[in-house]
Amino acid sequence: MQINIQLIPFPPNPDLLSERVVVVIDVLRSTSVITHALSQGALEIIPMTMVEEAFQRAKIFPRGSVLLGGEMRNKRISGFDLGNSPREYVSEKVKGKRLILTTTNGTKAFHLVSSGREIFAGSFLNIGAIAQRCLELNRDLFIFPSGNEGDFSLEDTLCGGMLIDLIAKGEKKPTSLTDASCCAQVLYQRFEDKLLEAFHLSHHGKGLIRQGFEDDLVYCAQIDITDIVPKFEGGVIRVI
Amino acid sequence: MQINIQLIPFPPNPDLLSERVVVVIDVLRSTSVITHALSQGALEIIPMTMVEEAFQRAKIFPRGSVLLGGEMRNKRISGFDLGNSPREYVSEKVKGKRLILTTTNGTKAFHLVSSGREIFAGSFLNIGAIAQRCLELNRDLFIFPSGNEGDFSLEDTLCGGMLIDLIAKGEKKPTSLTDASCCAQVLYQRFEDKLLEAFHLSHHGKGLIRQGFEDDLVYCAQIDITDIVPKFEGGVIRVI
Repeated sequence: MQINIQLIPFPPNPDLLSERVVVVIDVLRSTSVITHALSQGALEIIPMTMVEEAFQRAKIFPRGSVLLGGEMRNKRISGFDLGNSPREYVSEKVKGKRLILTTTNGTKAFHLVSSGREIFAGSFLNIGAIAQRCLELNRDLFIFPSGNEGDFSLEDTLCGGMLIDLIAKGEKKPTSLTDASCCAQVLYQRFEDKLLEAFHLSHHGKGLIRQGFEDDLVYCAQIDITDIVPKFEGGVIRVI
Repeated sequence: MQINIQLIPFPPNPDLLSERVVVVIDVLRSTSVITHALSQGALEIIPMTMVEEAFQRAKIFPRGSVLLGGEMRNKRISGFDLGNSPREYVSEKVKGKRLILTTTNGTKAFHLVSSGREIFAGSFLNIGAIAQRCLELNRDLFIFPSGNEGDFSLEDTLCGGMLIDLIAKGEKKPTSLTDASCCAQVLYQRFEDKLLEAFHLSHHGKGLIRQGFEDDLVYCAQIDITDIVPKFEGGVIRVI
């Protein structure tokens, strides 16, 4: 298997993705929220790019069946039901509900890679299950860290590096790594047992701490607390 | 000092560079060639983007005063005097000469960052001198690895990481690192005493080995064999 990771989240070439498995990563916090909400029984998650579109989309569904969640630049969005802390997405609130999610980086990322053959949402919370699914599918892999407003993200690349490391150790044949994949794997190996240290160094992590979300960092640094594999298909993310 | 490194060599925002020191890195092999040729007494180096432009430019200067050097995709260019092996650029050939250099990645990179306040060519051969100059100038730094045909390069980022590591250790106040700078520093710390191992893992390194240039990898992995600081200004690179 060949693994590439795109270190900066500009729109990838759609032709490059059509035969590849794609994993979108936004550790702080979209893909952690998505993973957690689905593990708590949310029906499905619709990732949206714009706040206004999210409000419009919500009107399509019966009242009470849908919740609006997300953030813009780490701030709660006026009129939304939930923010972007995974800890808010508990069973009592989300079970059986459709969630419309809008965030600064992560939800956009799914639309940028929508030409991928299969598209999954990865985070530390479910990284082992994602690696296992990638190994089963045995296709070339394209990892897409959603980054920080168009820039490189330490924590997303680190999570991508963990995925690379797990797959390289799980494959029977040698895994073919691009230069970027080598770099991500080295980054993971440096912070393997110190994820929180890396979050504290990262631009996004520091911003969340300043805004009072330090507990989210601790939450999102948990490894393999669920084995669900969220899949993006037809504009919607569901458990497969 | 704030240090940023652009991990993928797309054209940076010129406004971002106007107050920053910029270091262009193409370890395999442009900036190693530039550093070595100047240390061997070359008068100046004119980095060109296109082969045809290089031939045109050479006609301006008196016959015998100028040499054409470089490569396209690691191959010698027909009609050029020299290739892109640093070892070719010895004093007997280059002393007192003006060199017109055209390469796949490195020479283009200088033109992409031409709005920088001061622009230097860095390689492992002169990395200590580059770090020292950056510390003296004490301005925010923008490191530009020239990459592999628009993609991330392991060896260039590793060299950028060494520059970051040297500056961070040399500054009295804490150095401010972006997420990308943290990542490059981690990459350097992994391969600190194993540069050749990293070159052997890299896409470009493997290509050079296949094409018979393994000795160039060994040459370009030498640290601080000269203390010259090549500076790009007005389209020309000279020793300052």
